[in-house]
Amino acid sequence: MPIKLSITDSTFEEEFVKLLGMKREADADVDAAVAEIIADVRARGDEAVVEYTNRFDRLSIDAQGMAVTREEVDLAISDIEPSLLESLKTAATRIRAYHEKQMPTDERYTDESGVELGWRWRAVSAAGLYVPGGLASYPSSVLMNAIPAKVAGVERLVMVVPTPDNKMNPLVLAAARIAGVDEIYRIGGAQAVAALAYGTQTIRPVDKIVGPGNAFVAAAKRRVFGQVGIDMIAGPSEILVVADGSNDPSWVAADLLSQAEHDPVAQSILITDDANFADAVQKAIDVHLETLPRAEIAGASWRDFGAVVLVENLDQAPALVDRLAPEHLELAVDDPDALAEKIHHAGAIFLGRYTPEAIGDYVAGPNHVLPTARSARFSSGLGVLDFIKRSSLIKCTPESLAKIGPAAIALAHSEGLQAHGLSVAIRSNRM
Amino acid sequence: MPIKLSITDSTFEEEFVKLLGMKREADADVDAAVAEIIADVRARGDEAVVEYTNRFDRLSIDAQGMAVTREEVDLAISDIEPSLLESLKTAATRIRAYHEKQMPTDERYTDESGVELGWRWRAVSAAGLYVPGGLASYPSSVLMNAIPAKVAGVERLVMVVPTPDNKMNPLVLAAARIAGVDEIYRIGGAQAVAALAYGTQTIRPVDKIVGPGNAFVAAAKRRVFGQVGIDMIAGPSEILVVADGSNDPSWVAADLLSQAEHDPVAQSILITDDANFADAVQKAIDVHLETLPRAEIAGASWRDFGAVVLVENLDQAPALVDRLAPEHLELAVDDPDALAEKIHHAGAIFLGRYTPEAIGDYVAGPNHVLPTARSARFSSGLGVLDFIKRSSLIKCTPESLAKIGPAAIALAHSEGLQAHGLSVAIRSNRM
Repeated sequence: MPIKLSITDSTFEEEFVKLLGMKREADADVDAAVAEIIADVRARGDEAVVEYTNRFDRLSIDAQGMAVTREEVDLAISDIEPSLLESLKTAATRIRAYHEKQMPTDERYTDESGVELGWRWRAVSAAGLYVPGGLASYPSSVLMNAIPAKVAGVERLVMVVPTPDNKMNPLVLAAARIAGVDEIYRIGGAQAVAALAYGTQTIRPVDKIVGPGNAFVAAAKRRVFGQVGIDMIAGPSEILVVADGSNDPSWVAADLLSQAEHDPVAQSILITDDANFADAVQKAIDVHLETLPRAEIAGASWRDFGAVVLVENLDQAPALVDRLAPEHLELAVDDPDALAEKIHHAGAIFLGRYTPEAIGDYVAGPNHVLPTARSARFSSGLGVLDFIKRSSLIKCTPESLAKIGPAAIALAHSEGLQAHGLSVAIRSNRM
Repeated sequence: MPIKLSITDSTFEEEFVKLLGMKREADADVDAAVAEIIADVRARGDEAVVEYTNRFDRLSIDAQGMAVTREEVDLAISDIEPSLLESLKTAATRIRAYHEKQMPTDERYTDESGVELGWRWRAVSAAGLYVPGGLASYPSSVLMNAIPAKVAGVERLVMVVPTPDNKMNPLVLAAARIAGVDEIYRIGGAQAVAALAYGTQTIRPVDKIVGPGNAFVAAAKRRVFGQVGIDMIAGPSEILVVADGSNDPSWVAADLLSQAEHDPVAQSILITDDANFADAVQKAIDVHLETLPRAEIAGASWRDFGAVVLVENLDQAPALVDRLAPEHLELAVDDPDALAEKIHHAGAIFLGRYTPEAIGDYVAGPNHVLPTARSARFSSGLGVLDFIKRSSLIKCTPESLAKIGPAAIALAHSEGLQAHGLSVAIRSNRM
């Protein structure tokens, strides 16, 4: 059974802190193995990548065989049911439209001292997208990672996806085509991350690597950080539903289970002010679990990590939400906007009774790659900002340098940096 | 002598790749020691922080003595020369004005399917600012780190600064006061990072930690990443000057030395199309070094890591600049904007002959915390975006959910996630 907390219990604070600190992932100690693989790929390039791929994924390819060809993608797509392909395209169109609005503008202005200031955004030149093989090989994730990169203007977008026993999800290839991925390689694990970061004879290096992966991939991304940029290291998924008693318990139960079915270590939490409603949700969960194909996973997640938090009234919810800083936050109440206004930390907010979290996983438009494990306190979901970077711009005239220069010279001298001062002063003397 | 490369040499590509790969920092192996300090601070809190502080900084404080009081700051400021304080305030005003323009706007719109979408930005609740003690304790860095946080709306900004042998730079305290820092503690090293990340009895935890530090601080920041957000791990400073032969060699020499004087492992590079000018710059460097107080540091940096790259014409510069992706880029040419347009990767661009890099270090307004070691390929300088995060917003009506729902259900089923599909379908059936 999930944890049950009530804000009126004397032990509430203690129990809530336990909930916050709940550890859902064992630290797999793969770092040494990963370090070795990366060093090997740096030293031997293609040869090493091919060896690891053939060994771990039970293939027998050579360096040339790493690339997934245009023809292979065509062939895979031709087998997909047309209506499913349409759904993928609908999702892509909506995701593209949302992310296009995220593009920030450049700025250039002259201030009252006559100094021209500003900044400009430019895309990362080349990005790598890691896509897991096997069960977690989700076409929706390909769209969510690839489209922001292309909207940002990344010229070369490289996808790597392992194909254990030569099995590949055709929808993943279709999503890559729709999103505009430029190169695809059938490689995975730390060897794929190393190939993207350092390059091999066949695979040119990229500047940034995004996308989810197992413990090996996560450890490899941490290790190559600095050589390339990386996105966040994603933890297991979470949902927090704040619901009053006027909801259909069966709807809220489905929402809680939609995160729980991802992973036995996913976490679903319900905050409500109605104890009877909470009981009804639990009953509805039991009913849904009788028919859901992934009942075993969803049931384990709900049992081991689920939680119901009973509050006296929903005004008490925002403070608890902020401490949990959930990846996904559903506000199933009459005035969700008023409630959202009081909350500071959440990756994505689903407003109202007709906005199940799953709509955001696929077609709403916003990204489904969101900060987990309370990191919404300090980070944002994936977006175009992850694929562009800002250069600041400064342009002085002789006159404006003369105006602001003296303060710079004074501060440089106070910090003992006379060459700094000299570089300003030497230009003023010439005027 | 610095490295000299000419683009017409047959070995140019090979030599340039060496320049790109030049390793300027030894990896100090402090990770085990840092792990132990962090674990100790987590276990023993104040007691551990005080012990490490008294041992490493040769103090004899208790837990209460960690805080730098308002009175201490007042006293320190009263001793500062008024004109210097004015320079600091001028810098702060200009930095604040620039960063205020960086604040992004929230977005909310209803799309053609009737789905309400958008996002909103909220500040990180509490941020920690690490300020090194001793020589590298720069008041300008306090302004550059603290002001964006306050402009972003961070409510609680906590500064830590070690005071070895009880010595503290009064200007650092003045900068903290001017920038609006809320709490100051005289602690440093991994123990200070751990205290900020996990909290102690005296110091409440923060959500994000920024600011430069030594190898211990860098290793500690890497370790607490996830528990809190961190900024980039800064490497030694760099400048790349692209200059034609019409510059005063003495000016460009001063600019190259202004980075070199930071650190023996700083790097200054000149790209020019004029061999005689390059020689004249070298001569001017030798002349400047005769009088500069930090000649030993600057001379070592220029000798060991400096480089002059001779090109046939400056049209060849942008491709080389992009490969170097410098922290600071000076374009000392007649039409710097046209040249800048062709360049993609640089932390900050200083346009024209009257914009020495040092003006950006202090008073221009843009941040001087910038991506080093070629990371301008994928990252930006510090700014308000580092202290805010975005929540995406999604709101469906029964009608709009009915419109976009079917594609979500189809994709959920194709991924084998039936509870996802259910949470959408169950709401549509009710309509």
